[in-house]
Amino acid sequence: MPGRSRHLSINPGLGETDLLHVLAKSWPRGFTLRPRIPMALIVQKYGGTSVGSLDRIRNVAARIRRTRDEGHQVVAVVSAMSGITDGLIRLAKDLSANASEREMDVLLATGEQQAIALVAMALRDLGVDAASVTGRQAGIVTTGSHTRGRILALDPALMRRLLDEGRTLVVAGFQGVTSEGMIHTLGRGGSDLTAIAVAAALKADVCQILTDVDGVYTCDPRVVGHARKLPEISYDEMLEMASSGSKVMQSRSVEFAKKFGVVFEVRSSLNDNPGTIVTEEHPNMENVVIRGVSIERSQARVTITGIPDEPGMTGRILSALGEAEINLDMIVLNIAHDGFARISFTMHSSDLGRAQAALKRVLADISAAASIETEAGIAKLSAVGIGMRSHSGVAATMFQALGDAGINIGMISTSEIKIAVTVDETRIEDAARAVHDAFRLDREPA
Amino acid sequence: MPGRSRHLSINPGLGETDLLHVLAKSWPRGFTLRPRIPMALIVQKYGGTSVGSLDRIRNVAARIRRTRDEGHQVVAVVSAMSGITDGLIRLAKDLSANASEREMDVLLATGEQQAIALVAMALRDLGVDAASVTGRQAGIVTTGSHTRGRILALDPALMRRLLDEGRTLVVAGFQGVTSEGMIHTLGRGGSDLTAIAVAAALKADVCQILTDVDGVYTCDPRVVGHARKLPEISYDEMLEMASSGSKVMQSRSVEFAKKFGVVFEVRSSLNDNPGTIVTEEHPNMENVVIRGVSIERSQARVTITGIPDEPGMTGRILSALGEAEINLDMIVLNIAHDGFARISFTMHSSDLGRAQAALKRVLADISAAASIETEAGIAKLSAVGIGMRSHSGVAATMFQALGDAGINIGMISTSEIKIAVTVDETRIEDAARAVHDAFRLDREPA
Repeated sequence: MPGRSRHLSINPGLGETDLLHVLAKSWPRGFTLRPRIPMALIVQKYGGTSVGSLDRIRNVAARIRRTRDEGHQVVAVVSAMSGITDGLIRLAKDLSANASEREMDVLLATGEQQAIALVAMALRDLGVDAASVTGRQAGIVTTGSHTRGRILALDPALMRRLLDEGRTLVVAGFQGVTSEGMIHTLGRGGSDLTAIAVAAALKADVCQILTDVDGVYTCDPRVVGHARKLPEISYDEMLEMASSGSKVMQSRSVEFAKKFGVVFEVRSSLNDNPGTIVTEEHPNMENVVIRGVSIERSQARVTITGIPDEPGMTGRILSALGEAEINLDMIVLNIAHDGFARISFTMHSSDLGRAQAALKRVLADISAAASIETEAGIAKLSAVGIGMRSHSGVAATMFQALGDAGINIGMISTSEIKIAVTVDETRIEDAARAVHDAFRLDREPA
Repeated sequence: MPGRSRHLSINPGLGETDLLHVLAKSWPRGFTLRPRIPMALIVQKYGGTSVGSLDRIRNVAARIRRTRDEGHQVVAVVSAMSGITDGLIRLAKDLSANASEREMDVLLATGEQQAIALVAMALRDLGVDAASVTGRQAGIVTTGSHTRGRILALDPALMRRLLDEGRTLVVAGFQGVTSEGMIHTLGRGGSDLTAIAVAAALKADVCQILTDVDGVYTCDPRVVGHARKLPEISYDEMLEMASSGSKVMQSRSVEFAKKFGVVFEVRSSLNDNPGTIVTEEHPNMENVVIRGVSIERSQARVTITGIPDEPGMTGRILSALGEAEINLDMIVLNIAHDGFARISFTMHSSDLGRAQAALKRVLADISAAASIETEAGIAKLSAVGIGMRSHSGVAATMFQALGDAGINIGMISTSEIKIAVTVDETRIEDAARAVHDAFRLDREPA
């Protein structure tokens, strides 16, 4: 299939998703997912657990060979064997209290390089003409800070040539090189990002993210026993799920897929069950009001009262927290009757101590009347669904269900396709079950 | 020093040393070794033992920093931490009985990549602005088989740029990439080869091969207690020593240095004693008749008698051994009185079994009269020195000394600058001491 690939090239200097947006306009969108078409080009991503031992590497090779035997071309993207990356980080920490991030990248990139060599060897043992491909060889050009690289461009020329020679490719996830040729790693979720980018650049027919879960569920099955695996979910819903506690994938990979129109499937590396297809929304999807419910534990709330109702006060407070590298989640601002403003926000409870210290400093400058009140031990429940846009009464149903279960709601925040509430952490599982049942998420939609 | 570097470019398709010879004609020869010149560019090669633990890595970093503090630019070439390469080989063997050599290269190259990252981190901890450089980043382009790559060209542009920025470089030994960008390792002695090639391309003032021996000795000090460290030795003598049992360096690195006129010093990584300078011969060197004596144990001799004295017979026998990948060392051919030829050769004794099997097959085709006689448990002693060319009586002195010590000589072979004999392995140390004493190698030459 020569001429089918495309050199992704993204204007440097903008943010990753902004950049992608520029390109997305000219990118052919909406790949159809045709797992049974003959001679499909399939990208499969295998995580560190899937290649965590020599036996597992043999299993991965056998799975790739099966896909190959069905007549498809396969590009496997693999992570480092589980434990290897952590071992290298420990080694660097033992050597240096303040290890250079540039050199961390050089060190960590060896983990994936070892994995691709071993998987390719195992494939060759099964008679598959496999070739390993490093991030650099895959043409992945990155930008941004070391250890947190962003993909800037992908030139698939070498991969295309090897595929045209009939090779099965094993590509190192999580890595690329800067335009100066310096080794870069992509940070958390980097291998998923590699798989999506490779699928986009090669115009793959299918992109499978093979993982240790079976797909995306209406809720975490450990919390809601009758949670149902979703056959499909839209990018936006997946993004809201990811940012509200679902551990399946990092938001950045989903954003990347959305911008490039890469349809992908999250499925198990341990069985052949169909997983969940993540795709652009289509009209049928709106028939479902709520796609799923996600929960996030270990949250904390901070409320500041007595803020003078003057311009710029909120900005100063939020800037101080930003400088302290505190990620805020929900933010609610009110003007109280007494003429003072009141602001509440949530964060991960491990950030609470640093947040309090940063706030103490900034509030001392702002007002003697300001005071801080904190609450740890809360959790967040989010109901997500693009159907919310066209259905009314969603919030009412949700609050009614929580009220019937005797669960108090703390803060509320909403987006176009999400309603999130905080509840006491001890009641989060009850809350999830109540909302899941209220929207009958265990049932197949009509 | 911009503009000082040079892109080595060698015509592909020829042998490594032939190729180098082509280039050597146009290459500035005979670097002078000026360890005390201000702002010298010094290449230092550290082997796997020198970086074999985090403490040793810190020691290497401290040594590089000392050199740096003396005002010099440093390019350190490092091997993988000792044990790492063997561990990776074991992993590959556990996975696959017949691991792909292409993938072995991808796997093994990670060992050096980890080492350069760690050494660079340790340097940065000491306040040295260090940067790791992979084989690819060093511009090392290779050719030949996987796991046994040969250096084809070296483009030092990136190294030069980093040096111009004031960086101290830590370069991965043992690796490069093919002109197609595939990862290649350089085989045994590969890191020494990298150091010599980097020194040539950067026109370094000094190239130091730091190792676990103090330098090149007149004989192995474990055999001859009063062996003397040589202040200098010519390339040709070093080559003869290497090919006759001296373990200090592989011949290919010395050949490379000779062709490119890279003067280098073999010295200890554990102390600051001056080592042995390996350089082009100069007239003074010929005053010494014998530079050193090397020994090689575990040799075996095969003698074939009854070979019809016809053209092509010897060729067929040697070809059969070549196909069986037996490396022959000494070869002696005679025509006996009976009209049959007789050929003897030596090899490592571990090859003897395979050699006998290969010979049995070929001799069956050649002549019913041919028979094989073998002898294991022999050793080779070589006396090496360019002074032999202009001094007579060297062989006589040597044989006299061996005779006086009651040692029988088996085979004899000579080159322009070497006389080699086989003796019974039980007498090799006595033989070495006798020859060492006869030429008074323990004394400083006048």
